Amino acid sequence: MTNTLPTVVPYQQLLDFTIAIFQSLGCSAGDARTAAVALLSADLRGIDSHGVARLSGYARLKEAGRANPTPKVRIVHETPSTAVVDGDSGLGLVVAPFAMRVAIEKAMRVGTGWVSVNNSNHFGIAGYHALQAVSEDMIGIAMTNASALVAPTFSLERLLGTNPICVAVPAGEEPAFVADLATTTAANGKLEILQRKSEAAPLGWIQDSQGRPSTDPHELKSGGALLPLGGDRDHGSHKGYALGAVVDILSAVLSGANYGPWVPPFPAYVPMPTGMPGKGIGHFFGAMRVDAFRPAVDFKRDMDKWIRRFRSATPVPGQEKVLIPGDPEREMETERRQSGIPLLPAVVEDLSSLAAKLGVPLFETF
Amino acid sequence: MTNTLPTVVPYQQLLDFTIAIFQSLGCSAGDARTAAVALLSADLRGIDSHGVARLSGYARLKEAGRANPTPKVRIVHETPSTAVVDGDSGLGLVVAPFAMRVAIEKAMRVGTGWVSVNNSNHFGIAGYHALQAVSEDMIGIAMTNASALVAPTFSLERLLGTNPICVAVPAGEEPAFVADLATTTAANGKLEILQRKSEAAPLGWIQDSQGRPSTDPHELKSGGALLPLGGDRDHGSHKGYALGAVVDILSAVLSGANYGPWVPPFPAYVPMPTGMPGKGIGHFFGAMRVDAFRPAVDFKRDMDKWIRRFRSATPVPGQEKVLIPGDPEREMETERRQSGIPLLPAVVEDLSSLAAKLGVPLFETF
Repeated sequence: MTNTLPTVVPYQQLLDFTIAIFQSLGCSAGDARTAAVALLSADLRGIDSHGVARLSGYARLKEAGRANPTPKVRIVHETPSTAVVDGDSGLGLVVAPFAMRVAIEKAMRVGTGWVSVNNSNHFGIAGYHALQAVSEDMIGIAMTNASALVAPTFSLERLLGTNPICVAVPAGEEPAFVADLATTTAANGKLEILQRKSEAAPLGWIQDSQGRPSTDPHELKSGGALLPLGGDRDHGSHKGYALGAVVDILSAVLSGANYGPWVPPFPAYVPMPTGMPGKGIGHFFGAMRVDAFRPAVDFKRDMDKWIRRFRSATPVPGQEKVLIPGDPEREMETERRQSGIPLLPAVVEDLSSLAAKLGVPLFETF
Repeated sequence: MTNTLPTVVPYQQLLDFTIAIFQSLGCSAGDARTAAVALLSADLRGIDSHGVARLSGYARLKEAGRANPTPKVRIVHETPSTAVVDGDSGLGLVVAPFAMRVAIEKAMRVGTGWVSVNNSNHFGIAGYHALQAVSEDMIGIAMTNASALVAPTFSLERLLGTNPICVAVPAGEEPAFVADLATTTAANGKLEILQRKSEAAPLGWIQDSQGRPSTDPHELKSGGALLPLGGDRDHGSHKGYALGAVVDILSAVLSGANYGPWVPPFPAYVPMPTGMPGKGIGHFFGAMRVDAFRPAVDFKRDMDKWIRRFRSATPVPGQEKVLIPGDPEREMETERRQSGIPLLPAVVEDLSSLAAKLGVPLFETF
């Protein structure tokens, strides 16, 4: 192992390690497993910025008293098709699976289930939670707000998080369709990669502290902001802003969580916003039983036809093929389940320190 | 009146005229009013491309036997929170209000209602339908697919419509939040304006018949395509593509309508696609009772706070203020209800011919 090559860790090793870390933070065995599986789904699917690289961040949230390792997650209000869940300041990685399960159970009874969550923390990747519905022949929806890094169109101030939306749809013989997207031009994780390499970002990703378009990936550390999907007004940034706003409203205004500039930050060293109007961060989940609309077999036959038509579209010259949303992540998961998860040296170092501090044996590598 | 100045028509005059046209096409008095109010909401809100300028297009759909003026719109499948509505080939302007009403009534009973629609035609603007829920203290959602003008990321072929999404959210003292957006960089109506003026489009709106970025707004007539929100892969076009695909799936795969490249075209002279897998075009509607989650008074207080915080954000230099989604359309509606609706000479000419052909007296102008 050199200082730049990634270390490759078998999934099961990394899972056992992550479970042990969560248990040492005070989580029950069940919650530790739930959280670890949700967290590592990001590593499996190639969204490295949201996976085990954040484990020590979650640990610091707990140490700072911002995340409760033994939350009493509960439904505080409900109707046949809706609920509000109070996460009791727990890890989003534990709260979100609970809430998604509530949505699925409601869908089983009345066709659809919709759950807005307050008093939670970051939940990993939206795709993992939405996909829970797919194995039940349901369309799954997951979204979350996050601390403000994004400037709405024409705003100098950062008022929205990267606020992702995922919609996962079951198919028949084809794998599920999984649209999982931050409502920004580029996810924060992509910017982190450029920061690490000190490479320029394309115009349209960020603005500087004066609101000018910028290609410097470090601008966010000096008052700059991520831009909504679209990048600028001429290219539809008001649409990305509107979508991010919808996520904020459904996740937090509908549940009584914090919204806009008042969403608590993930890094435990960043002070909490003042004048917070709600509790914790917010999520929103939906589950729709396919056969509440059409016989599942008919729906799946048409989804297969949809997927095959799009996948076989003539590509533009120079491109190999048209992808179906979810294709790259699924292919990555197949590969990484088999050959392991590559971790950058900085991540391994960070996890080693965490392991030493908590007295948990470090994972073995390939 | 010169040949370039718009003619201004009082809203009520234009409404009466439009009702008369729909009646002369065979619609009942009730359906004619429903359709006219829905259609003209586009003119009121400043989305001129989708309003009365399309009236003769709707007439041609009826003449071509593609739209049924006396449809038996009905629920063909339902659960407590869901339904599929068959539009019986009716005007979307009539079918959509029926379906939205079903969603609202289900929400009254079980918290939310979700309706997927097949066998319909174009429904005007999504915003009108979503806003029906707002006056009931519900969040309204409306989307529709449309004939293929958009090339997914890396695709040379046009496989998706501009597939708009609207989410309308009630507030307290503030007006409603209304996010209403085509899932393309620019709506087709904006391109039509550039075509009329023969002005160049910004890069990122369209590609030519070889899949190359283009600024020529006429490319769509020679094999080019609109681009998904984001414009290109570096700027997140795979996200716009995924959102447009979600609209297509919820509107059509879930209802049994046509999807992807098989969606029937709006212009009656364009041949129908071959091998169509479903019936007509598809829509999807949702209604969520706010108090199925939180007391409405609490929700609205937080929505007011959300709106005020965003509206008072510091703007970037050179911009006046940060807008709330729905602000421009609402301001336009207030103005046009008072001072009338401006119609371009070509539109007035088109409506005059239509009026003469159907023996309907033309509206009076200011």
